[in-house]
Amino acid sequence: MSLKYFFNPAAVAVIGASSNRAKLGRQILDNIIAGGFAGHVYPVNLKEKRIAGRPAYASLTDLPVRHRADYAKLLAVIAIPAPFILDEIKQGAALGVKNFIIISAGFKEDGPEGKEREVALSALAEKHHLNILGPNCLGFINTYCNLNATFAAAGREPGRIAFLSQSGAIGSAALDWLKLKDFNLGYFISLGNKAVLDENDIFAHLMGDDRLDLIVAYLEEIKDGGHFMKLVSRLAKHKPVAILKAGQSAAGSQLALSHTGSLAGSAAATRAGIERAGAIWLNGLEELFNLLMLFRRESWQNKGREDLYVITNAGGVAVLTVDEISRQGLTLGKSWDLLGDADAGRYQAALKKWLPDKKINNILVLLTPQTSTEPVKTAQAIIAASRKYPHKFIIASFLGGQTVYRAKDLLEKANIPIFDYPEEAVESFRKMISYKNSFRHLKIYHSPAVRPARPLRGTDYLRALKLLAQYKINIVPTRKYSAARPPRLRGPLVLKAVGPDFLHKTEKKAVFTDLDSGRKLRQAARQLLADHKRNFRNPKNYLVYQPQITGAQEIILGFTRDESFGPIILVGLGGIYTEIFKEVRLATADLDEKGALNLISGLKNYPILLGARGHKKYDLKALVRALVNLGRLANAHPEIKALDINPLFVGTEDVLAGDVRVIL
Amino acid sequence: MSLKYFFNPAAVAVIGASSNRAKLGRQILDNIIAGGFAGHVYPVNLKEKRIAGRPAYASLTDLPVRHRADYAKLLAVIAIPAPFILDEIKQGAALGVKNFIIISAGFKEDGPEGKEREVALSALAEKHHLNILGPNCLGFINTYCNLNATFAAAGREPGRIAFLSQSGAIGSAALDWLKLKDFNLGYFISLGNKAVLDENDIFAHLMGDDRLDLIVAYLEEIKDGGHFMKLVSRLAKHKPVAILKAGQSAAGSQLALSHTGSLAGSAAATRAGIERAGAIWLNGLEELFNLLMLFRRESWQNKGREDLYVITNAGGVAVLTVDEISRQGLTLGKSWDLLGDADAGRYQAALKKWLPDKKINNILVLLTPQTSTEPVKTAQAIIAASRKYPHKFIIASFLGGQTVYRAKDLLEKANIPIFDYPEEAVESFRKMISYKNSFRHLKIYHSPAVRPARPLRGTDYLRALKLLAQYKINIVPTRKYSAARPPRLRGPLVLKAVGPDFLHKTEKKAVFTDLDSGRKLRQAARQLLADHKRNFRNPKNYLVYQPQITGAQEIILGFTRDESFGPIILVGLGGIYTEIFKEVRLATADLDEKGALNLISGLKNYPILLGARGHKKYDLKALVRALVNLGRLANAHPEIKALDINPLFVGTEDVLAGDVRVIL
Repeated sequence: MSLKYFFNPAAVAVIGASSNRAKLGRQILDNIIAGGFAGHVYPVNLKEKRIAGRPAYASLTDLPVRHRADYAKLLAVIAIPAPFILDEIKQGAALGVKNFIIISAGFKEDGPEGKEREVALSALAEKHHLNILGPNCLGFINTYCNLNATFAAAGREPGRIAFLSQSGAIGSAALDWLKLKDFNLGYFISLGNKAVLDENDIFAHLMGDDRLDLIVAYLEEIKDGGHFMKLVSRLAKHKPVAILKAGQSAAGSQLALSHTGSLAGSAAATRAGIERAGAIWLNGLEELFNLLMLFRRESWQNKGREDLYVITNAGGVAVLTVDEISRQGLTLGKSWDLLGDADAGRYQAALKKWLPDKKINNILVLLTPQTSTEPVKTAQAIIAASRKYPHKFIIASFLGGQTVYRAKDLLEKANIPIFDYPEEAVESFRKMISYKNSFRHLKIYHSPAVRPARPLRGTDYLRALKLLAQYKINIVPTRKYSAARPPRLRGPLVLKAVGPDFLHKTEKKAVFTDLDSGRKLRQAARQLLADHKRNFRNPKNYLVYQPQITGAQEIILGFTRDESFGPIILVGLGGIYTEIFKEVRLATADLDEKGALNLISGLKNYPILLGARGHKKYDLKALVRALVNLGRLANAHPEIKALDINPLFVGTEDVLAGDVRVIL
Repeated sequence: MSLKYFFNPAAVAVIGASSNRAKLGRQILDNIIAGGFAGHVYPVNLKEKRIAGRPAYASLTDLPVRHRADYAKLLAVIAIPAPFILDEIKQGAALGVKNFIIISAGFKEDGPEGKEREVALSALAEKHHLNILGPNCLGFINTYCNLNATFAAAGREPGRIAFLSQSGAIGSAALDWLKLKDFNLGYFISLGNKAVLDENDIFAHLMGDDRLDLIVAYLEEIKDGGHFMKLVSRLAKHKPVAILKAGQSAAGSQLALSHTGSLAGSAAATRAGIERAGAIWLNGLEELFNLLMLFRRESWQNKGREDLYVITNAGGVAVLTVDEISRQGLTLGKSWDLLGDADAGRYQAALKKWLPDKKINNILVLLTPQTSTEPVKTAQAIIAASRKYPHKFIIASFLGGQTVYRAKDLLEKANIPIFDYPEEAVESFRKMISYKNSFRHLKIYHSPAVRPARPLRGTDYLRALKLLAQYKINIVPTRKYSAARPPRLRGPLVLKAVGPDFLHKTEKKAVFTDLDSGRKLRQAARQLLADHKRNFRNPKNYLVYQPQITGAQEIILGFTRDESFGPIILVGLGGIYTEIFKEVRLATADLDEKGALNLISGLKNYPILLGARGHKKYDLKALVRALVNLGRLANAHPEIKALDINPLFVGTEDVLAGDVRVIL
């Protein structure tokens, strides 16, 4: 269902409006009226006749709406106790109402009865093609049509940021913060339980809305990762999307589960998916609020050089700022110390000198209160300069407290991003620059084409190796050992036990190397068979031998399957350092050769593969192909939960899978 | 010279006091009087007779002070133009004045003339044993004797933190911030140019001052690292010392140089020294101010369990907080969600339930404004609970803006640490816990005993290897190659070119391996000699051969000599991954076996040395001894600027230095 009339209704009915100002329904009604919404506003209350000076109606049926088509353009905001809601919606749906917000709690989050109610709600929505936001949410604000359909106070001026929150509390904290900082959103959308509408529906609606500069979402779970990546990658081609995903730690994700009742999914997979979508990754609330602050200034979009210029009246603060610029991998344009006795005039002169310079795009103004410092006048100089040069990106950090807070307030009112600490300014700026550098290369996500294959029916070692070979991942020649037959391979050999009881071969001391004669091979086999006698009663455990590979780089390749984001491919440093450095990169399984190379080149050991420092050059192309082929395998074999190749030997002329582990 | 009367003078003279309220001298005078200083306060001004309602004096000579002993107890604060200062100090010194603050600028930071003036000032101080703070500083505040000898406004209530700043601007920003947050320091000391008194003198004075809970210093350079480590490690045994060191990046350190005129020293060495001293390392201004905030509450000192308990009215915020707790490596006690409709009473009840529990020491109270939230009343409940349980460490983070700022203000006034974001609270808490876990094991730093040795006279390769052997670091047998003589070693050999033109052997392709016959060795030698014909005209370049070592772990061992902190020993992952992972640990050269083992055990590859995952166990003891011996070598050979052993082969029964590089 289109959300056109959901977000831009011709009229709004508030079910649960009341004369009692303490009731949420009344607060919502007041907000809609005070916000200056141009359409009809209908209070709905079973008993009351007039509310807030307007006629009230007993039900949706009684509204002065004649045509079914008009009901379709109406938004019904529901703030009555949960047990009455389903009937209300049924009645509305019968009249042709399509758009609802359910503010009330008492659903999924509230025991088995609530869960049942939510299931019924979803079914109802599906049956009648309804848009329902919530339940258990704050509602939404659309400043472009002066509609504040929440019970929270908020400014009216249309802003350029859309803010989505799965947590009502974080949503209300954001609105509260924005009010203090005197700036406004374009959209505020509280997702609540996401029984019907979820983040993906909202992203789809926001697509192509040029009034927006930035979309920020706080999410606790992403149910349909594939759709999410499709939509967000399309959005991110045009404007930054930033995601704060709660539950990144095991403990946090456990807590999120008990809090929202929905599984958080694998944190690493979710991050890979969010990054694949081209979204800005946020590490916490501080980063989220700092990013909002940064995007106050529209000139973030300016093109051209990306180095950051610094004006300061304190050398020490400049040094710390430059330290942070370097830590963030940014380039310092120049740092200009106006010295401790700089008054506002000196700041003004510096800005006047730098702003006309075409090389200079981004200026961070630092101020520290000293004897001649004029914080307010300096703020005014910055504001004037920003107005004169609207395309220059000017941000500020005024250190201190008592002396500077009025000046900071002025800057906030004038939409200049102002930070308590220079580190925050630099860190947020880096996120913005990263986005600007990446969105052009971002590829819109499409679900990979899958050529279905006959499912793998067991985890037999040799069968799994054969599967790799079927997907053109070459394998080290591997033979089943039999005491009766002489070895069919030459040179130093490796003997290992494989099968369900030997998933961790090294730890089980089930690998013997340097076997350079038939005698040594037989000896090793006897010992292995003796050491693990009980295991070998199960014929699924057996011995294999392979030629020993030397002079290759060891890489780990694999995938795990995430419920939401699908197969997540992994490539990284193999061998004894796999666990030590956890030097791996993850990607979704739509990898092509370019993407695979990009992924590999992000590894710290990439220079070694490239042949740095006089070493030999390894077959990168073969590694890239193996990665792409593993993606194909992962897509074609949904029955495989996880697969590891470790080591994959990367030689100078090919790659060879040395070992494999499959989990169905 | 003792700083007893410097910080606790019987009387203060302000040279440069004036009737003109705009003058710094007058502002200082006013601050001293307004601060309620109990001793005599003498305005000194050449022309004026009365200042601020007090008699003024033309010079120090004219003060109503009779005895030389009384002059010794006087503090002279100087705020007159730089060219007149030296004479003033000479006059004072002649009278017996020992203690000075020079507020005025116009010294080292101000061109050649100023530099000369500063040199003269230092000489004067040395000659007459004077304590001089500055020049080019804000002065100091000692709230314990009601003395504010700065021109900055500050509160009077005695606090429990000493704050040192080498930057006047950062000092004044801190005072300004503290005023807004309504809390006070014990000492505030602006170091300025450190012509005479530096951080070490102040640290020595603060030793054993039990009124202090925390010492924080912002420093741009540490001139005497050895003394610094001695003092700070002694301090840190009893109370936390936190250091923010500017100039950690190359660009930042360059800027610091141009700003302060003093070399920042190697950033890595400085960090190693600061950590050796047991100080808390701060990454920036935000961390510094957050730490100040945390130490508002004296109960940080409580003993017992260190897990953090969380009370919240917003599940999402709790999830993010738990994510951060996990990221910081802390333990979550329990998270208690009071739900979105929690009023102050519910917070109160939760605190009442938890606080008597002996297991619970540390509580983070989270609040997010929602409909039933009562921020001010909740703040009051927290304050009341903190008063009732002064030994429990209660901190808070109230998210939002408009609705919560009054409540935050209340908490600040009541000395409850209150943070804008939970991440900040958790991160600062982690720093505090790390300190609490480490100070008991901290060893007070002593300059290592040095047994001087005959200096190394050149960088000859075989000579350098011999030096290692002298310090009981075993070396791989290494022979000079001569075409005329057959090789005196067996097995696969390594041949390499050494000497001044072969400092980067691998990159120069000057290493041949796997030479398993005399013929192959000769062949390789011929090729090397031909490839680098020109280099071998210099007899300092020559060929050596060694047996090829296999099955060992490759480690890098070395040291560099820092001007301030002396030799800094390095141990890390060797071989091809040295540059890739830069997995190294640094330490000062007072390493003993325990310290060496501690350092090595911090390496990510330590588990491999230990024999993790079925690998063999390497000779850790020999590695530890090699590290300690390298420290002895570094201490005994001050002529060596830097020395690298890479690789050091760590085998199962010994360690062997495979290669060495020395820089004199």
